[in-house]
Amino acid sequence: MMMTRLCLVLVAVWCSSAPALAESYLVRTQAEYSEIAKSVEAGDVIILADGEWRDFEMVITGEGSSDSPITITAENRGEVILTGQSSLRIGGQFIVVDGLVFKDGYSPRGEVVSFRRTKQDIASHSRVTQVVIDNFSKPDRYESDYWVGIYGKNNRFDHNHMVGKTNKGVTLAVRLDSEESRDNGHLIDHNYFGPRPVLGSNGGETLRIGTSRYSMFNSNSIVENNIFDRTDGEVEIISSKSGGNVFRGNVFLRSRGTLTLRHGDNSVVERNVFLGGGKDYTGGIRVINRGQIVRDNYIEGMRGTGFSSALAVMNGVPNSPVNRYVQVEGAVIENNTVIDSRRITLGAGADEERSAPPIDSTFKNNLLGGLEDDTFIEVDADISGLAFADNRVAAGNIHSAAAQYMRQAPVEMERAANGLLYPVDPALASIGAPRDLSPVTLDQVGVEWYEKPGNAAVFGSSGRVIEVAPGEDTLVDAALAAHDGDVLLLSDGEYIANRTIPLDKALTIRGAFEEGGHQPTIFFTRPTLVELKDGGNLQLANLTIDGALAPDSVGNSAIRTTTYPIKSNMLIEMDGVTVRGLIVNKSFNVLTLGKSALADRVSIKNSNFADITGAIVSAAAETEDFGQYNVEYLDIVSSNFANIGEAIANVYRGGRDESTFGPFVTFANNNLAGVGLAATNTVGASLNLHGVQIADIERNMVAASSPFRIVHTVGTPRTSVIENQFAATPSFILEELNYEGDHRAVLDGNVFTGSDEQ
Amino acid sequence: MMMTRLCLVLVAVWCSSAPALAESYLVRTQAEYSEIAKSVEAGDVIILADGEWRDFEMVITGEGSSDSPITITAENRGEVILTGQSSLRIGGQFIVVDGLVFKDGYSPRGEVVSFRRTKQDIASHSRVTQVVIDNFSKPDRYESDYWVGIYGKNNRFDHNHMVGKTNKGVTLAVRLDSEESRDNGHLIDHNYFGPRPVLGSNGGETLRIGTSRYSMFNSNSIVENNIFDRTDGEVEIISSKSGGNVFRGNVFLRSRGTLTLRHGDNSVVERNVFLGGGKDYTGGIRVINRGQIVRDNYIEGMRGTGFSSALAVMNGVPNSPVNRYVQVEGAVIENNTVIDSRRITLGAGADEERSAPPIDSTFKNNLLGGLEDDTFIEVDADISGLAFADNRVAAGNIHSAAAQYMRQAPVEMERAANGLLYPVDPALASIGAPRDLSPVTLDQVGVEWYEKPGNAAVFGSSGRVIEVAPGEDTLVDAALAAHDGDVLLLSDGEYIANRTIPLDKALTIRGAFEEGGHQPTIFFTRPTLVELKDGGNLQLANLTIDGALAPDSVGNSAIRTTTYPIKSNMLIEMDGVTVRGLIVNKSFNVLTLGKSALADRVSIKNSNFADITGAIVSAAAETEDFGQYNVEYLDIVSSNFANIGEAIANVYRGGRDESTFGPFVTFANNNLAGVGLAATNTVGASLNLHGVQIADIERNMVAASSPFRIVHTVGTPRTSVIENQFAATPSFILEELNYEGDHRAVLDGNVFTGSDEQ
Repeated sequence: MMMTRLCLVLVAVWCSSAPALAESYLVRTQAEYSEIAKSVEAGDVIILADGEWRDFEMVITGEGSSDSPITITAENRGEVILTGQSSLRIGGQFIVVDGLVFKDGYSPRGEVVSFRRTKQDIASHSRVTQVVIDNFSKPDRYESDYWVGIYGKNNRFDHNHMVGKTNKGVTLAVRLDSEESRDNGHLIDHNYFGPRPVLGSNGGETLRIGTSRYSMFNSNSIVENNIFDRTDGEVEIISSKSGGNVFRGNVFLRSRGTLTLRHGDNSVVERNVFLGGGKDYTGGIRVINRGQIVRDNYIEGMRGTGFSSALAVMNGVPNSPVNRYVQVEGAVIENNTVIDSRRITLGAGADEERSAPPIDSTFKNNLLGGLEDDTFIEVDADISGLAFADNRVAAGNIHSAAAQYMRQAPVEMERAANGLLYPVDPALASIGAPRDLSPVTLDQVGVEWYEKPGNAAVFGSSGRVIEVAPGEDTLVDAALAAHDGDVLLLSDGEYIANRTIPLDKALTIRGAFEEGGHQPTIFFTRPTLVELKDGGNLQLANLTIDGALAPDSVGNSAIRTTTYPIKSNMLIEMDGVTVRGLIVNKSFNVLTLGKSALADRVSIKNSNFADITGAIVSAAAETEDFGQYNVEYLDIVSSNFANIGEAIANVYRGGRDESTFGPFVTFANNNLAGVGLAATNTVGASLNLHGVQIADIERNMVAASSPFRIVHTVGTPRTSVIENQFAATPSFILEELNYEGDHRAVLDGNVFTGSDEQ
Repeated sequence: MMMTRLCLVLVAVWCSSAPALAESYLVRTQAEYSEIAKSVEAGDVIILADGEWRDFEMVITGEGSSDSPITITAENRGEVILTGQSSLRIGGQFIVVDGLVFKDGYSPRGEVVSFRRTKQDIASHSRVTQVVIDNFSKPDRYESDYWVGIYGKNNRFDHNHMVGKTNKGVTLAVRLDSEESRDNGHLIDHNYFGPRPVLGSNGGETLRIGTSRYSMFNSNSIVENNIFDRTDGEVEIISSKSGGNVFRGNVFLRSRGTLTLRHGDNSVVERNVFLGGGKDYTGGIRVINRGQIVRDNYIEGMRGTGFSSALAVMNGVPNSPVNRYVQVEGAVIENNTVIDSRRITLGAGADEERSAPPIDSTFKNNLLGGLEDDTFIEVDADISGLAFADNRVAAGNIHSAAAQYMRQAPVEMERAANGLLYPVDPALASIGAPRDLSPVTLDQVGVEWYEKPGNAAVFGSSGRVIEVAPGEDTLVDAALAAHDGDVLLLSDGEYIANRTIPLDKALTIRGAFEEGGHQPTIFFTRPTLVELKDGGNLQLANLTIDGALAPDSVGNSAIRTTTYPIKSNMLIEMDGVTVRGLIVNKSFNVLTLGKSALADRVSIKNSNFADITGAIVSAAAETEDFGQYNVEYLDIVSSNFANIGEAIANVYRGGRDESTFGPFVTFANNNLAGVGLAATNTVGASLNLHGVQIADIERNMVAASSPFRIVHTVGTPRTSVIENQFAATPSFILEELNYEGDHRAVLDGNVFTGSDEQ
């Protein structure tokens, strides 16, 4: 099948180029390629031989023509693999690149695929199709690049497969930074934008068209029939920062963030399908600027709020500078379905600066359905500039000014053949998304010869359980030999690790429950027991970690991330774990997340920590205030902490950038005694949350400890501190860094007793 | 010659072991080795085949005997190379390991060579000889290990060669952490301890015997006839932390720091030769604790002061805890020569805590000579507990209580055949170091088949000068192709770098002076122009760097260190350089030194910086307050700074540890206008020095800028701020973190004028 397709393409090329004496060249080395590429002419085909092309900075330029393009293709699609430090730059015109795979490496430049050879030699009428870019990310997550940079005019980027961008910088950028790149008519279609993990910083967009600097220009690009699957990089999945773009027929699957019309006017967003699947922070469309049309979209299962609502119409800044928020004017928002979603926000972001509400806009024929126990339609500003007509609210509460404009009544819905929900009642046919939507499917995007990622389990996925006997380095040896997803089962006894365990896979270390026995105890003689590396995930259960044999040096940590860059986000779980006696020197932590590392989740429950000079979880390495941080979800529940020198959790997310969702902290049902009193704990808190976006701190018992400290920075942080009891512990330290007014934390039912009353 | 020697050894072994039917095995693989090692018996010889042994965690144990040891040796000494993640562990007794080389890798354990197989199986009567450990350092400088750990009793470590330990942890440690390792009679002799660069943290000792925890025990180790060549790791070259050790006949060449009798009593330091060569921070012997004997030593050319004096007798802490300072009692300090040295300090470290002066001690027959324009003998406490007799001060000023006890008069000296200086006058024969010293020479230590390091030039060492034409990526291509020590010569014109230059060698980039021409200008389109990697050193001269094409992202830096670990210390020099227009986004720095990176020297002179949103030099990545820092010497002189958003220099050395000398900052004859006023400059200073040990801030002209900030932390920081002129700039921010009393900076001749007077 694959060969047949390729042959058809080649035949077509040969036929049409026959008059120009076009040639076809099979090249086997970079040197051969360079030699041929020098003199390539219209109609020529360069075929790269199957195999690995390492450190190949491929360049092609030349003058193809409409009926005789210059073509670079693979001997067999998917069998030509560019690895190491490789990239592709295209200049000239009418050039087609087809069938390559980039993996096992990264671009040494600013782009993996660039529609520009140099600043002067920019591609036009060129096409990149059936190209795979798989985890081809720079090792350090904060070293930025684009995977694809589209410059010039009338280029097409279609049927490509992009998965696993882990470093900063948008996956695909359309650039308008020269005159010949504006009003460009690019077509971006049928691509598979696969999972992009949380970046933990600005720069995690999947697709961006333009920048604020050139947003007064039209791009006139078309983005259609692409799938965005779990593109969770940051708050904007698509960031439209130019005028006249069309986003049509795209499908968004369980992706955090929104399609955002961030800058530029007169774009069209139509016939897209957003399926959030009830995942946190999933959102739909965010409207800013003038003349935007949002129609015939279908949005289901969203859980985002605020800027990440299923639908957000923002307030603007009067006479806005180019990099802020232009007032919404002349928007048409009609015939959209928003169902099973947490929030629609009108006048979103209204504050002293963003004081200009939407004007001259219409909002009609929309079918809207929210969740039961929440506010569905939130109104944060004057919405008299929105002309409402014929909208129907099928579910969810409206405690806002929107209520007067909309009919609220349940609507019976059923799922149609296209998989989307529609009203049963034919009288409602004119509201909501049209019946004839036909969402593009996974087999219609990307390439058919490269597998799309599924939903992998992490811990225990191999199904193997390996029993490890007590002794010196038995655990280390077993861990070194283990495969991804293995479980190491420890029995009652002492395990001594004389090497740090380097962890580049998912590993579970679990103590066997033995009748009348004790938990296995792990000692370690290096500054660290486990060092998490790229690909590392750690699950600990039913065991004890004892620091008695650790060396006498400052800043030991039972678990820490490597100082090498880590591309992957990690999971760290502890359940039924005891950690004790980390006291040989100052600042001996349990878990330290270092520079450029991001944990998707750290979960600690039913565990006991005693006699530790450092912190339990240190996630505070990003001190530059660039909006970066080290943990997305931190859960610490039902655990006990006694005599802990520094904070239980030290979480730092500085800076004023609003491109990220986390960190998110749950701290509940814990007991603390004598926590945070060491001289090295300079911040003076037993729980130190700086810039955490959502914090639930509930039902903890705290005795003779330093206070909880909560610093709010940007965004709309939501902190609740409820029903905690404090004995001989100072009251909260609460700060707001970028908000005038009282601290926004909800404090309720907290009880403080003095030292006398203990 | 080499073969002859080896054969002699083998013959000897065979003869003596013949009755036991000893065997000799030549092994070629790790599997063969393991198999043989399992059943090795007294008298057996295992010969490792020449070649590379990669990732070889070599283990040997067994019962040799006094006349029939078990021997592991090389087919040819120096031709058996252990690389990658390799180590050696020795258990049992009467085992000899001979002739191996460790290079191109590091130990995955806590030691490279360990005289212990497990906690139970500890070596005794064993010997490691003619082993080379060359740059076998863990990649991250703060990940600690020992290169050699000696446990057990009666072991010998001799004629080994150790060069280039760059990570934390002492080069050779004698451990007393079990009873069988005390009173051990180890012999450490004829080793070459070659250059160890500045670590920038505690843990850079070259040799340590014991720890504070076990310092009440005698080690009774002998350290003799070793050479310590440029062992500059930290303030202690040798740290004796146990009792009864002998340091005899060692030679210290241009090594920063001192032989320190840190803990433990009754050690002997005799007949050692210290030759400082006038290098910064070179020191001799530091005396603490009871019953120490310091005699017949020769000390010349030292420039250290305080704790690093040529000779320091410390004050103690009354009833000192084991990890503080035991009062000097019963010391005998006699017949030492200290010549051409900056300082002898008596009662060193006296403060509120260290209030117990030396008692019951003698100080006699010493020949002492200082520098001309300095205080030679400093007395910081009551020295009535030192019995002075027959000391002669041949040169240098004494403005202290010591003057009354010593005869001051010039002494004519001449250099004897042993290379050391002695009085010409035979009447003075009884004072100073003895005539019969015969300092061990370089060819008598280490091995003769492995070259000892010389003094390498860095920049321009290859002698090659490569002309690079203006254009897109011409500079990048030339830099990628350059060799260590090359000079790239740029002509008048524009250079655009589309790739970051990864620099793992010494490279000079210099503009050619052209009659009537301009400086070449370098633009870059990535967030960074040059990224320093392991081995990288950069010299820039006579050129302009312009940020106009840099991408719009926060935290760009024209030059920065890689986020991968860097073992080597780097040099960065700018002379006649203009840097301008680093403004595309916030916090765009000129030079950023990141985590775990240490520059030996950053030197900026005759340069111009304008319109920059970040800092000029950011050396503030070590924020954990573990006593680590990013730059040893920072010189910024005769340069101009206009409109700089953050600080000119941001230097941070936190923590309370006193094991390091730097940072050292010279900031003189600069002009500043509009510096440090950006909102991102949270510390609010135009020059921010935290924990700098020596700072000379002189003759700068500062206008409309944020203030200079100087925070003193530990030690005896010396800051002079002299003859600077400030217009419309706030006064200094001065803080002392660990010192009661006024700020110790010398402020003299500084002039402030208000904004009205400009």
